[in-house]
Amino acid sequence: MAATVLSALLVQILIPVAAVIGMIFALVQWYLVSQVSVKGGQASSNNGHDQYLLEEEGYDDGATVALCAEIQTAISEGAESFLATEYKYLGIFMAIFSIFIFLFLGSVSGFSTKWVPCKADPAELCAPSLANALFSTVAFILGALTSTLSGYLGMKIATYANARTTLEARKGVGKAFIVAFRAGSVMGFLLAANGLIVLFIAIVLFKLYYGDDWTGLYESIAGYGLGGSSVALFGRVGGGIYTKAADVGADLVGKVERNIPEDDPRNPAVIADNVGDNVGDIADRDFVAMSFPLLISSAGIVVCLITTLFATDFFVIKSVKQIEPSLKRQLIISTVLMTLAIAAVSYLALPSTFTINVVGHQPKVVKNWQLFFCVGSGLWAGLIIGFTTEYFTSNAYQPVQDVADSCRTGAATNVIFGLALGYKSVIIPVLAIAVAIFLSFSLAAMYGIAVAALGMLSTLATGLAIDAYGPISDNAGGIAEMAGMPHKIRERTDALDAAGNTTAAIGKGFAIGSAALVSLALFGAFVSRAGIAVVDVIQPKEFVGLIVGAMLPYWFSAMTMKSVGKAALAMVEEVRRQFNTIPGLMEGQVKPDYKRCVQISTDASIREMIPPGALVMLTPLIVGTLFGSSTLAGLLAGALVSGVQIAISASNTGGAWDNAKKYIEAGASDHARSLGPKGSEAHKAAVIGDTVGDPLKDTSGPSLNILIKLMAVESLVFAPFFAAHGGLFFKWLNI
Amino acid sequence: MAATVLSALLVQILIPVAAVIGMIFALVQWYLVSQVSVKGGQASSNNGHDQYLLEEEGYDDGATVALCAEIQTAISEGAESFLATEYKYLGIFMAIFSIFIFLFLGSVSGFSTKWVPCKADPAELCAPSLANALFSTVAFILGALTSTLSGYLGMKIATYANARTTLEARKGVGKAFIVAFRAGSVMGFLLAANGLIVLFIAIVLFKLYYGDDWTGLYESIAGYGLGGSSVALFGRVGGGIYTKAADVGADLVGKVERNIPEDDPRNPAVIADNVGDNVGDIADRDFVAMSFPLLISSAGIVVCLITTLFATDFFVIKSVKQIEPSLKRQLIISTVLMTLAIAAVSYLALPSTFTINVVGHQPKVVKNWQLFFCVGSGLWAGLIIGFTTEYFTSNAYQPVQDVADSCRTGAATNVIFGLALGYKSVIIPVLAIAVAIFLSFSLAAMYGIAVAALGMLSTLATGLAIDAYGPISDNAGGIAEMAGMPHKIRERTDALDAAGNTTAAIGKGFAIGSAALVSLALFGAFVSRAGIAVVDVIQPKEFVGLIVGAMLPYWFSAMTMKSVGKAALAMVEEVRRQFNTIPGLMEGQVKPDYKRCVQISTDASIREMIPPGALVMLTPLIVGTLFGSSTLAGLLAGALVSGVQIAISASNTGGAWDNAKKYIEAGASDHARSLGPKGSEAHKAAVIGDTVGDPLKDTSGPSLNILIKLMAVESLVFAPFFAAHGGLFFKWLNI
Repeated sequence: MAATVLSALLVQILIPVAAVIGMIFALVQWYLVSQVSVKGGQASSNNGHDQYLLEEEGYDDGATVALCAEIQTAISEGAESFLATEYKYLGIFMAIFSIFIFLFLGSVSGFSTKWVPCKADPAELCAPSLANALFSTVAFILGALTSTLSGYLGMKIATYANARTTLEARKGVGKAFIVAFRAGSVMGFLLAANGLIVLFIAIVLFKLYYGDDWTGLYESIAGYGLGGSSVALFGRVGGGIYTKAADVGADLVGKVERNIPEDDPRNPAVIADNVGDNVGDIADRDFVAMSFPLLISSAGIVVCLITTLFATDFFVIKSVKQIEPSLKRQLIISTVLMTLAIAAVSYLALPSTFTINVVGHQPKVVKNWQLFFCVGSGLWAGLIIGFTTEYFTSNAYQPVQDVADSCRTGAATNVIFGLALGYKSVIIPVLAIAVAIFLSFSLAAMYGIAVAALGMLSTLATGLAIDAYGPISDNAGGIAEMAGMPHKIRERTDALDAAGNTTAAIGKGFAIGSAALVSLALFGAFVSRAGIAVVDVIQPKEFVGLIVGAMLPYWFSAMTMKSVGKAALAMVEEVRRQFNTIPGLMEGQVKPDYKRCVQISTDASIREMIPPGALVMLTPLIVGTLFGSSTLAGLLAGALVSGVQIAISASNTGGAWDNAKKYIEAGASDHARSLGPKGSEAHKAAVIGDTVGDPLKDTSGPSLNILIKLMAVESLVFAPFFAAHGGLFFKWLNI
Repeated sequence: MAATVLSALLVQILIPVAAVIGMIFALVQWYLVSQVSVKGGQASSNNGHDQYLLEEEGYDDGATVALCAEIQTAISEGAESFLATEYKYLGIFMAIFSIFIFLFLGSVSGFSTKWVPCKADPAELCAPSLANALFSTVAFILGALTSTLSGYLGMKIATYANARTTLEARKGVGKAFIVAFRAGSVMGFLLAANGLIVLFIAIVLFKLYYGDDWTGLYESIAGYGLGGSSVALFGRVGGGIYTKAADVGADLVGKVERNIPEDDPRNPAVIADNVGDNVGDIADRDFVAMSFPLLISSAGIVVCLITTLFATDFFVIKSVKQIEPSLKRQLIISTVLMTLAIAAVSYLALPSTFTINVVGHQPKVVKNWQLFFCVGSGLWAGLIIGFTTEYFTSNAYQPVQDVADSCRTGAATNVIFGLALGYKSVIIPVLAIAVAIFLSFSLAAMYGIAVAALGMLSTLATGLAIDAYGPISDNAGGIAEMAGMPHKIRERTDALDAAGNTTAAIGKGFAIGSAALVSLALFGAFVSRAGIAVVDVIQPKEFVGLIVGAMLPYWFSAMTMKSVGKAALAMVEEVRRQFNTIPGLMEGQVKPDYKRCVQISTDASIREMIPPGALVMLTPLIVGTLFGSSTLAGLLAGALVSGVQIAISASNTGGAWDNAKKYIEAGASDHARSLGPKGSEAHKAAVIGDTVGDPLKDTSGPSLNILIKLMAVESLVFAPFFAAHGGLFFKWLNI
């Protein structure tokens, strides 16, 4: 391996420096958001942008502001109480699973503490499996804690920025956009930097023990991904059920039955919905990294920082129509800048040629420019996925307008068109992923796939920012409604929210695309670590694994959708009960019992997240232990290729339905007006589609990328155990 | 290879004899059906079952009977005109594709006419590739003609039996059931016998040329499957769009907007719907056979014959509650008897041990009792799939009742619960298929899979009979409504129809289960014929094929669902136009313009069947030619494991929604009555679910099993071409 331009010392400095820069930037953004006052009577505070106050329209009466603050506090308290309950159960699960990891991996060579000759090169000494067990467990706990912290921070900043966005909307759509986007960036940069620094520290510390046993080191580090993904799964499923139970309940009872708008404060399910949007939409992402990968991530933070300034400082949104182009510009700018950054990092941090191991084949010599193409292919595949998703979910284009038009003939055609749209939207993303896979696979085998995934995730901070912006805007609209602010303000927050639906779908597209690449890389690592040479699907074990694996995303979706349905039913009953038993509620004179609604959502989500979580966490363990690594390899491949399709189609179908509804409500064109207004038959049909889409786009769909990633990383962590003791059933059958 | 108990001569006699027995039985059943007179004034004709005339209730006035006859004629004429148009386009397609096959396969060794040394054993001579090209083309045309004939016969008998079932329903549910079931058997036995005899004759004739070159013979015979599946695909897609366009149109306009019942004669889309049910639901099935396989099929005809007598003669249905158990009994009886028959055939027709070739491995020695287990595993997996499907789609059980209950909170929860039900219903069938695959794969490699598929299809005649029974009952109900027959009669036909929905779902379960097995066997044959040793999915070409293959069923579904949606929109507009412009139509004084509705359905289905058909037919050709056999192998595996899941879930979701609606309409329990009656809010929600389910269960879902089978058989037929000239893109890239 030839020398690199950058020295090891410099690398060790650059990575933490990038992380610190990211964190400082996040804090600055937070400070700017905090300048919007939510204290009654001071609403027109000077927030440093006096020139825009001309736009202000004079709604800043103290009572409204106080009401916004009150609602924000209620949302925040609800979210805190939900997360507290969730973390309690998660803590128990993590503790038990940590013991599992330690015992399973420790048992591989009978808890021996002796260093042994390495498999790859018997002249070297490798760490004992007990060390692997111990460090994997520690990494697992670290990953889980990082993911938990990220979720908590995400909730805090989102609930902090909701009401502030609403209040800024009084001054114009541009100012509201900046607050929501800044808050999104706080989250994006905190999470990206936090993930980078914790991983970096873990690697540095683990290295003190492992020394030159890099294989052992990275095998333990896989535990970090497992911990992060586990928490993300429960967070996504639990949070998704929580928020969507409230959402379905609120939509049904609120809009169809009582003809009151979605976030009307008289509808007691609404507050739980607003709480849930923060919990469900913003707890995700984890890192899989190595040395070059960490540098790419570091460069990504700097690139995203510059990109963010284009949205908040270099350009200023002046009208509703500029919102989506501004967010789209974020994607393009970050991708172009990142391409340059990748080229630089590839040149500086990689030797001109180096060798990588290929499962079941001769090692491969790779040139640094080839690795640049691998990372770049992932990055640009991400952009293509982003654009495709935008085309299929934004109401500026034909597909969503067609879905809206189909509402003319009722809910049934709306559902049929929406499902068909989701299925169709899978084609281009899958082809983009396939090309990226083929290119990077051919150039640098599984390592190429891993860095392609990294390329797609390199603009993570920007991706998270525009993803997080969505629920903040959604909640801002809800608060505007609940605080009884004028129609004009609600129109602005609605426009922010419509763009948010599209960015949420784009974010999910990136998440699933990168999950496909990450899982394939993890799958390759698993195959190598489990000592399998080929995964030949014309053999019985592998094929059976493949077909059963392809079934798992359906099983998982059945569980999560049914959970949302059940929780929603309970919520509807409760809302009906309150309307019927609390005098004056319908008239808006009395407050509903929000607490009880939050409680129902919380209980349902905790109870219902256990079976799908268990399915994902136990399947690799059971299959590996009973049927061995070959069957498990088939299963992972099946779950991967099947899960990608359902995840993309579910997210896009849901996003399209939501925006078809908003298209009719906004009535911004002759066509849209011919379908509306709110309350028309076509609008009612659109509401039904939107409600069906909720569990698809916010519970089942986005959990599936975690499912495929988690099963792959879990298999990787437990691979030594399966190799040593797995396949008990076939051993018993003597096959 | 040791000797068999049966002699070759006896085998050559037994197979055609079984086919002839099947045909005679079908004709006898047809005769019995024809005894129900549809001539006005003779309705209470003696049909040989005088003892049941006690049940008769006196509605046999001549006018009603004449009206039934008239409606039947209209349905029949509509169906004929649709099929005539469809066959014209199909004929052109088949002619072009025949030329393709001949040129592609002929080019493999430059249209040489010389016999060449065989690959497997160079001491033997094998037929030239030109012979393969010629015989494959002939087999393709034969398969296409057989499939076309089957579809036409199915339509004829179904339209023949509709009105007769309606008229018998005046005498009681038992008599109506017998007519519908007998008509179903006519179709089942004609198709099964027809398929068997044509294939047998083709093999005998081809053998005159091929002599001992069995490999060449069976390679050509694959063309038969390709022809049959191609026609089945276009028949299913075209027929599915045709009938469902009418259905969606009729349901929407009929039930929701005008509050008139589904098959009310005033709704002009209804007649097209009734026509379509015959075309769309009854054109399918093809055979893949070898010598032992043909004997199993022959035995199957005899077993099914006995089984049928249990439904029509040994037991007699007396009440509505006995319908489903009677159909279920058919499944159990045929499976048990068939198990004995398979044991007998395995003992008589197989040597005690014999050798089979295994792709990329040593040949395998198989014992005859092992092959019995292979066939049996397929047969019993089919029964498990049947029972699971019944559990998830019959309104006698919890799942459908839960879906019905969810209508209480509106269409959105109904759709969510229905989709979740479909996803959940995939689990057990896939596990059953997986176990059958593992068992037969382990015992007898790909040949084991092929005979397992055969086992699942061995009770085909019974399966087809109970499958065909469904649309006949559905149409019978429609005719009763249109002829203005009393409510009581409609209740009976509704009960027959509800059972029909379940049996249709069961039939689709069998179809997809067997398609999975057949496709896997074809896939194995393709891999072997293309000269690939392994399909290793951790290689770039194979993995990319796998993920793109898994996407194809989504692309296909997007096309077909959208087609139904578009055709339905056109139909709705037309129906609205007629209601608005034809005076007296709403009042029932004037007849609607049925012809125009039939025309709209026909045009839409012909136009819309081309893109999905082209996707399925061209994908293997393009992928094989440009990207080679390895990529194509991955693609086939991906399409197989992904398609199975969507197909099962789509069929069951649709069936469940239909029966949830019927459950509410029938009001047979306190729970059901609390949701109804017709026209209640819950019922309206149920209608929306039912309408969404139509394209899922009758167009997308059931076409998918043909998709995976067709792509596999097409790849097999063209394998020599891909092996010789395929992979142009990679050759150009020099990879």
